[in-house]
Amino acid sequence: MESEKSKGRTVSYSKTVMTEMIMPNDTNPLGNLMGGYLMRWMDIACAVCAARHSGSQVATASVDHISFHLPIKLGDVITLSATVTRAFNTSVEIFVEVSASEITGENPRQCNHAYFTFVALDKETGKPTAVPPVIPLTVEEKKQFEGAVRRRELRLILAGRLKPEEATELQNFFSHVKPKSLTS
Amino acid sequence: MESEKSKGRTVSYSKTVMTEMIMPNDTNPLGNLMGGYLMRWMDIACAVCAARHSGSQVATASVDHISFHLPIKLGDVITLSATVTRAFNTSVEIFVEVSASEITGENPRQCNHAYFTFVALDKETGKPTAVPPVIPLTVEEKKQFEGAVRRRELRLILAGRLKPEEATELQNFFSHVKPKSLTS
Amino acid sequence: MESEKSKGRTVSYSKTVMTEMIMPNDTNPLGNLMGGYLMRWMDIACAVCAARHSGSQVATASVDHISFHLPIKLGDVITLSATVTRAFNTSVEIFVEVSASEITGENPRQCNHAYFTFVALDKETGKPTAVPPVIPLTVEEKKQFEGAVRRRELRLILAGRLKPEEATELQNFFSHVKPKSLTS
Amino acid sequence: MESEKSKGRTVSYSKTVMTEMIMPNDTNPLGNLMGGYLMRWMDIACAVCAARHSGSQVATASVDHISFHLPIKLGDVITLSATVTRAFNTSVEIFVEVSASEITGENPRQCNHAYFTFVALDKETGKPTAVPPVIPLTVEEKKQFEGAVRRRELRLILAGRLKPEEATELQNFFSHVKPKSLTS
Amino acid sequence: MESEKSKGRTVSYSKTVMTEMIMPNDTNPLGNLMGGYLMRWMDIACAVCAARHSGSQVATASVDHISFHLPIKLGDVITLSATVTRAFNTSVEIFVEVSASEITGENPRQCNHAYFTFVALDKETGKPTAVPPVIPLTVEEKKQFEGAVRRRELRLILAGRLKPEEATELQNFFSHVKPKSLTS
Amino acid sequence: MESEKSKGRTVSYSKTVMTEMIMPNDTNPLGNLMGGYLMRWMDIACAVCAARHSGSQVATASVDHISFHLPIKLGDVITLSATVTRAFNTSVEIFVEVSASEITGENPRQCNHAYFTFVALDKETGKPTAVPPVIPLTVEEKKQFEGAVRRRELRLILAGRLKPEEATELQNFFSHVKPKSLTS
Repeated sequence: MESEKSKGRTVSYSKTVMTEMIMPNDTNPLGNLMGGYLMRWMDIACAVCAARHSGSQVATASVDHISFHLPIKLGDVITLSATVTRAFNTSVEIFVEVSASEITGENPRQCNHAYFTFVALDKETGKPTAVPPVIPLTVEEKKQFEGAVRRRELRLILAGRLKPEEATELQNFFSHVKPKSLTS
Repeated sequence: MESEKSKGRTVSYSKTVMTEMIMPNDTNPLGNLMGGYLMRWMDIACAVCAARHSGSQVATASVDHISFHLPIKLGDVITLSATVTRAFNTSVEIFVEVSASEITGENPRQCNHAYFTFVALDKETGKPTAVPPVIPLTVEEKKQFEGAVRRRELRLILAGRLKPEEATELQNFFSHVKPKSLTS
Repeated sequence: MESEKSKGRTVSYSKTVMTEMIMPNDTNPLGNLMGGYLMRWMDIACAVCAARHSGSQVATASVDHISFHLPIKLGDVITLSATVTRAFNTSVEIFVEVSASEITGENPRQCNHAYFTFVALDKETGKPTAVPPVIPLTVEEKKQFEGAVRRRELRLILAGRLKPEEATELQNFFSHVKPKSLTS
Repeated sequence: MESEKSKGRTVSYSKTVMTEMIMPNDTNPLGNLMGGYLMRWMDIACAVCAARHSGSQVATASVDHISFHLPIKLGDVITLSATVTRAFNTSVEIFVEVSASEITGENPRQCNHAYFTFVALDKETGKPTAVPPVIPLTVEEKKQFEGAVRRRELRLILAGRLKPEEATELQNFFSHVKPKSLTS
Repeated sequence: MESEKSKGRTVSYSKTVMTEMIMPNDTNPLGNLMGGYLMRWMDIACAVCAARHSGSQVATASVDHISFHLPIKLGDVITLSATVTRAFNTSVEIFVEVSASEITGENPRQCNHAYFTFVALDKETGKPTAVPPVIPLTVEEKKQFEGAVRRRELRLILAGRLKPEEATELQNFFSHVKPKSLTS
Repeated sequence: MESEKSKGRTVSYSKTVMTEMIMPNDTNPLGNLMGGYLMRWMDIACAVCAARHSGSQVATASVDHISFHLPIKLGDVITLSATVTRAFNTSVEIFVEVSASEITGENPRQCNHAYFTFVALDKETGKPTAVPPVIPLTVEEKKQFEGAVRRRELRLILAGRLKPEEATELQNFFSHVKPKSLTS
C-alpha cells in the first residue's frame, strides 16, 4: 500500500460529504446560522478529507479568506463537500463548498466556499510527515491543482514568510489576471 | 444617545474579553484543540464586540486568512481579546487575538489572530444599518485603523468585487512595503 | 412541480450522506461509540432523506430492530448513507447503512444498518400529507422496494395493529423463505 | 458478594429512573422531540440498568422495534424507567418505558417503550462475561421474564442467526397467540 | 383540581429522580466531575420538582451553601433526588441529594446535598403566583418542613433583606442548637 | 518563580473575565437563562482564577448562597469577572460578579455575585498543596480580604465543622454589624 500511496491518490479517493441540520443552538437571535458554527463544520469536513488523502493524522495549518453571503436559517439542511486540490511536501490544500436548502429540498442555494490547509502528522511521533501527491483528473480538478500555487504564495506573504517582491506568480496576477481565478 | 453614537465610539467602548477552558470534546485524537472550535469562539467574541460598537444586531460577513501555529492542549485556558479597528458605512472590522496558557498560568503564549468583518443589521427590519465611526486613540489603534483600508481592498479583490489594477494601496504594498504591515 | 412530484421520485433524488467524527463525549468509558449516539445520527440522516423525498416536514414513526456488532472507536470516522425504499400513502420507509474507518481511511468496515419509517407532515397544518411514490431503478433498489411490504407487515404486528394470521406474506416467509431476505 | 451475585438479583436491584427536560436543541422545527434524541436517552437509561444488574461494563447489542406515537413538546419533562427482564449467559434484556408531561405535571401520557439487549464486558479484558440470573417476583416481572425467550428468537431470526423453521415458540405464536403478547 | 391543589400536596407527589452518567466533557483534567456541572443538574432536578408541586412554571430564586467533598469520576453514575420541603406564598424550597457509584453499582457514596428556592410564575402573565402548601407526612419530611423557617431567615439576612437582630430563630440557634440542624 | 510565588500575588495577577452569549439551549420555556447554567459558568470562571492564583490544579470545595434577581434573556450577553479575595493554607476564596446586557450593550445591569472556594491540588500527587498569600491593594480588595474570615466561619458552621458558639466573629456580627457586610 505504501508504494501505491507514494504514486499519488485521485481527488475522488478522499472526497468527503457532510450533511447537517441547523438546530436552535447553532443560530443567532435573528434565527440565522452563526458564521463560527459553519467554520467549525467546514474544518471537520476538510480535516477528514485531508486525513483520508494523507493517510495520517492532520492539524489545521490555515484557512483562507471566507465570505458569508446568503443567510442559512434554523431548520435548513446544509451539505459540505470537501476535496483535496494539491499536496506540498507535508501539507495539503483542501477545498470545501457549502450548499443549503430547506429540509424539503426547496430553496437550494450555493452558500460559500473556502480553502483550508492541513499539516500531516505521523501517528507515532506527532511530527510532520510526507503526503502523497494529488492526481487531478477532471478539468475542474486540474484548475484547482494549478491555482494552488498562487494561493500558497499569498498565504506565505500573509503569514510574513515570503516577501511580496518574491511572489512572482502573484505579481503577474496583480497586473494581468482576472480576479476570479485567485479564489476559484 | 443617538447623537453621541453618530460622533463615533472609542475602541475601548466595545472591547470584549473571553476566557475558555479546552474541554475533551474540543480536541482531536492528538489532544489538541481543533481549528474549527477556535474559529467558532473567535467569531462569537468578534460578534459581541461588533454588536457593542454598532449598537445593533450583526452577521458575520467575512473572515480573513487565519494561521494556526502553536498547538493548544486539552486543559489549557485561552483568552480571546476582540477590538474594533474601523467602520465602513454599514460594516465594521474586528481584530481578535488569541493567547493560551496552562490553567496554572504556566507556558503563556500568543497563538494567533484574525480580522473578521460584520454587517450591522437593524433589529426591526433586518436590513443593513449605519455604524458609528471608530475613534482610534493609541498608536496601535491608529495603526489598525489605517491598515483597515488595505485589508479591505484585498478582501474585495478576493471576493471578486474589485479589479486588482484598481487596488492602488495594494499595488504600492507589493513593491515597497514590508510584509508584516499587511496583516498587523 | 406538484405534477412532477405526484409521478414519483427516484431513490437518488433524496439520497443523503453524512460523515461524523467520533468525539470523546460520544464514547463510553471503554472508548467505544455508545449505541444511542449512533441511533441519533441514523435518525437525523433518515429524517433529512425522508423530508427530501416527500417534500414536507417529517416525524419519526418507528425504527426496526438494530444490531450493533463491531465497536466504533474514539477518533474513527463514520459515514451514514440513507436512501428511501418505498412510500405508503403518508409514510415512507428509509434504509440507512453505517460504515466506519479510522480517520486515515484504514480499517474500513460495514457496521450496521436499519429501517426507519417517517410520517410526512404538512408544513401549514401539521397533519399527515401524501408522499410521492418511489421509482426504484437498480436491482438493489427494486429488492428493497419489494421487501418493504413484508417489513411493514411485521411492523404492524409488532405494533399490535395487524393480527399475525392476517400477515399473509410473513406466513409464507416463516415456512419457505431464507431468513436474510426479511431484513435486507 | 460473588456468591450473592451468582444466585441472581431482583429486578428492583437495578431499576433505573431518569428525568429529562426537553430543551430547544432536542426538537425539530415543529417543536417536537426528535426520535433520535429519545433513543439516545433510552440507550443510556438501559445501559445504566444493565451495568447495575450485571456488575460489569456493558455495550449495546441490539434494540428491538420502537414506535413513536404521541409527540413530545419543547419544555415537556420525560421520565424513563428501565428494568431488567432476563439474563442469557453474557447478555441481558432491558425493558424501558417512557412517559411525558408538561413540567407542571399536566397532560401526563405514556409515550412508548422498547427492549434493548446488552453484552456484559469484563472491566479488565473487555471480553464478554457471565451475567447473574434475574429473579422475577411480581406478576408483571414474571410475564416479562417469560416473553424474553420469544423476543430473543425473533431477534436471532432478524439477525440471520436462526432459521424461521427452528423458531418453535414463534411458530406457535403466529397461529395461536394474541398479537400484544409479542411485545409486552 | 384547583380545590385539591389549594388543600396542599404531599412530598411524594412531586418527588423527582434523575440519573446521569459522567461523560468526558463534564470532567476537569484530573478526570473529576466539575462542580459547576453538578450544580446545573441539581438546578434542573429541583426545577422539575418545584414545577410539579406548584403546577406552574418556575424560576430559580436562590441556592444555599453547597459543599463538595468526595470526587465523582468519569464514567460514574450519579442519582439526584429532589423533594419539596415547604411552600412560602409564591415560592417553594426544594431539597436535593446527590449520590454516586461506579456504573456497576460498586463504591456507592452519598456526595452532597443542597437547598434551592424557586418562584412560581403564572404561565400566562409571567408574574409570581400562589403555591399550594406542602403536606409533610414522615418524620424526615416534618423535620425538613420545620427547618425551612430557619433556613429562610438566614437566606433573607444573606440577601440583605432581614436584619440579623430580627432573626429570632437564628439567634436561638447560635447559642443553643447543634450545628447539624441548620442544614439538614 | 517559587520564591516570588511564596511572597504572594496581587489580585489583578489572576483576575479572569469571561463573556458568554445566551443561546437557546441555555434557556427555559420562558426564554430566560436557567440558574444552573449560570452557576456552571460562574464555577468555570472562578476555577480559572483560582488555578492562576495558586499555580496548581483546583477542585471546587464549596459555593456560598447565591440569589437570582433579574432575569437574563435569550440573546443577552453576560460578563463574569472573577477575583481572588484571600488564601487559607491549601484553599482560596474567589469572588465572582455577573453583569448582563443586550448584545448591543443596551439595558446593562448587575445580575448577581457569589463566593466560591477551591482546594489547590498538586499536579503530580493530586493532594492538597499550599497556596500563595493574596496581596490586597485597593480599598475594595482589602474589604474583601477582611470579610473572608467571617464568610469562612459561616461556611464551617454550615458544613458542621465549627460549633456556632466558637464563631466569635459571627457572634459579633449577629448583634452589631450591618447585614450587607456579610456578603460583600
